[in-house]
Amino acid sequence: MSEMTRLDLDRIRAARRVIDPVFVDTPLYRCEGLGRALGCELSVKLETANPVRSFKGRGTEVVATQLAVGGEGAVVCASAGNLGQAMAWSGRSRGLDVTVVASRLAPPIKLDSIRSFGARLELVDGDHEVARCRAVEIADAESVRLLEDSLDVETCEGAATIGLEMAAASSFYDAVVIALGGGALATGVGYVMKALSPATEVICVQPHCAPALTRSWQQRRIVTTESTATIADGVAGRFPIPEVLEDLLVVADDAVLVQEESIMLGMRLLMEHAGLVVEPSAALGIAAILEAPERFAGRHVVTIVCGSNVDPAAYRRWIDRPSSSR
Amino acid sequence: MSEMTRLDLDRIRAARRVIDPVFVDTPLYRCEGLGRALGCELSVKLETANPVRSFKGRGTEVVATQLAVGGEGAVVCASAGNLGQAMAWSGRSRGLDVTVVASRLAPPIKLDSIRSFGARLELVDGDHEVARCRAVEIADAESVRLLEDSLDVETCEGAATIGLEMAAASSFYDAVVIALGGGALATGVGYVMKALSPATEVICVQPHCAPALTRSWQQRRIVTTESTATIADGVAGRFPIPEVLEDLLVVADDAVLVQEESIMLGMRLLMEHAGLVVEPSAALGIAAILEAPERFAGRHVVTIVCGSNVDPAAYRRWIDRPSSSR
Repeated sequence: MSEMTRLDLDRIRAARRVIDPVFVDTPLYRCEGLGRALGCELSVKLETANPVRSFKGRGTEVVATQLAVGGEGAVVCASAGNLGQAMAWSGRSRGLDVTVVASRLAPPIKLDSIRSFGARLELVDGDHEVARCRAVEIADAESVRLLEDSLDVETCEGAATIGLEMAAASSFYDAVVIALGGGALATGVGYVMKALSPATEVICVQPHCAPALTRSWQQRRIVTTESTATIADGVAGRFPIPEVLEDLLVVADDAVLVQEESIMLGMRLLMEHAGLVVEPSAALGIAAILEAPERFAGRHVVTIVCGSNVDPAAYRRWIDRPSSSR
Repeated sequence: MSEMTRLDLDRIRAARRVIDPVFVDTPLYRCEGLGRALGCELSVKLETANPVRSFKGRGTEVVATQLAVGGEGAVVCASAGNLGQAMAWSGRSRGLDVTVVASRLAPPIKLDSIRSFGARLELVDGDHEVARCRAVEIADAESVRLLEDSLDVETCEGAATIGLEMAAASSFYDAVVIALGGGALATGVGYVMKALSPATEVICVQPHCAPALTRSWQQRRIVTTESTATIADGVAGRFPIPEVLEDLLVVADDAVLVQEESIMLGMRLLMEHAGLVVEPSAALGIAAILEAPERFAGRHVVTIVCGSNVDPAAYRRWIDRPSSSR
């Protein structure tokens, strides 16, 4: 499989060794109450209990280590919010100048955090795709390293270390449900599971309102969209990256789309039955189970709770929303 | 110090080896946003990301291992809710018959969970002290092992393993703020910190409305109260245990009381700035910082987030409460 993707187990194992311990060996445990509510056996891989409250630190630690070893002193990246926080955190401890480009519409909690970790933050009008273009301009103009999430294989390798920890667990998982955004998390974790636990079904989940990469996977060619309209700000891309799609076609068994209502209900169930605050993207896996209970009935499913950077007021609104489905 | 308490480092290290890995090596990380809100450097030791959502599994794993090795097949304990869940979980995997006695007034989420893990649950009218008496009766009548939280040194040794992990961290902590209930957590962690990081100030925190052990520590003699009236159900005891007080007098540098308002505000700040759902007892440390900001200003403080078993409706009410102080 290594010949068919950009990923490689030895490189992923090496990546794990340079990541700050605060980001690895994260909790992985069964949530019986939530499983009962969903009609399956449910385990959670919790990626929010760290200084940046998302899994992105695994990848930025790899990138920052490379930059420091190579004597490079600066990096610029576009971010929906979580990558920027993580890059700022990893860069700060190594004395790197970090510039983050983000949409003015990104959640304030993410933008404030990027600034607080000492990065230069440039806001653009428009969505994440506009930020990506602006980051390219800055990198060209200032001749600094451009970090592109999911395209730069280090971001996939960092995320893939989550898969190493899941594959090493004593439990076998019938399926892993993974949030699909740019694709680093899904291709990284999917690659490792296919390599080390091939009987585990790898299912990617994206919102109906931001379906570009899922549509691309389904049609086996790049499909773009005009806009996105999901509360799951962390996965709202419109222009899938061809190299990422190629990898995803190899490692994913399925890619599904879920409704906004299911995402909100998933957030609420995670709070009520597991005591977990999550951002919308981190509830995509639960949303997928809610929308296809028969598919998951009685099976052992693991979901990656990939981030908890959510504005408190919006969070309260989403989880308090009356639900028609239960 | 070993000669002065019931605790012993070698026994605590041995205890750690029999605890299911799902309960140990828990996240320990800096929460910069929450620290800024509180005016100190704040780190969190997160004990909620496991199947029973509290630290109690560390102690019950030690107890259940002993019982299984000794060929004993049953155990009874009184519980405010979290010990019972943990004992049920640890007992189930070893085929033990577990009976839990709890107050009818304990949070339904805790009682439901005790049942769901397969324990026999007996409810009593009255508070946790009534449950303790009833557990003694059952143990006598049925000739089974009585597990007494904080009195049975295994519960302290299990909790103390949290201290091993904090003392092994790369950071130095100026102070640790610890929820004080029966005393297992405070004496266990306090003992290890005094042994391995003696310059760290050990501060115990109890609600003003359930002050028995704190008053006892302050007066160096057992002080009981007629009743308790705190939302922090996990720490609402009235009859301190003499042996535990003796240990606490050796290992604690201070014991303070906090208002209910501060506990609720602490819960809210943990949600808003750290994305953590906690039960009231787990916010006691933050409450102590809120009530004495000058004492902690600029210092590196670590708090143990010891449980997240909170009823969702009550939780929403508490964190949404308007606060006069900020």
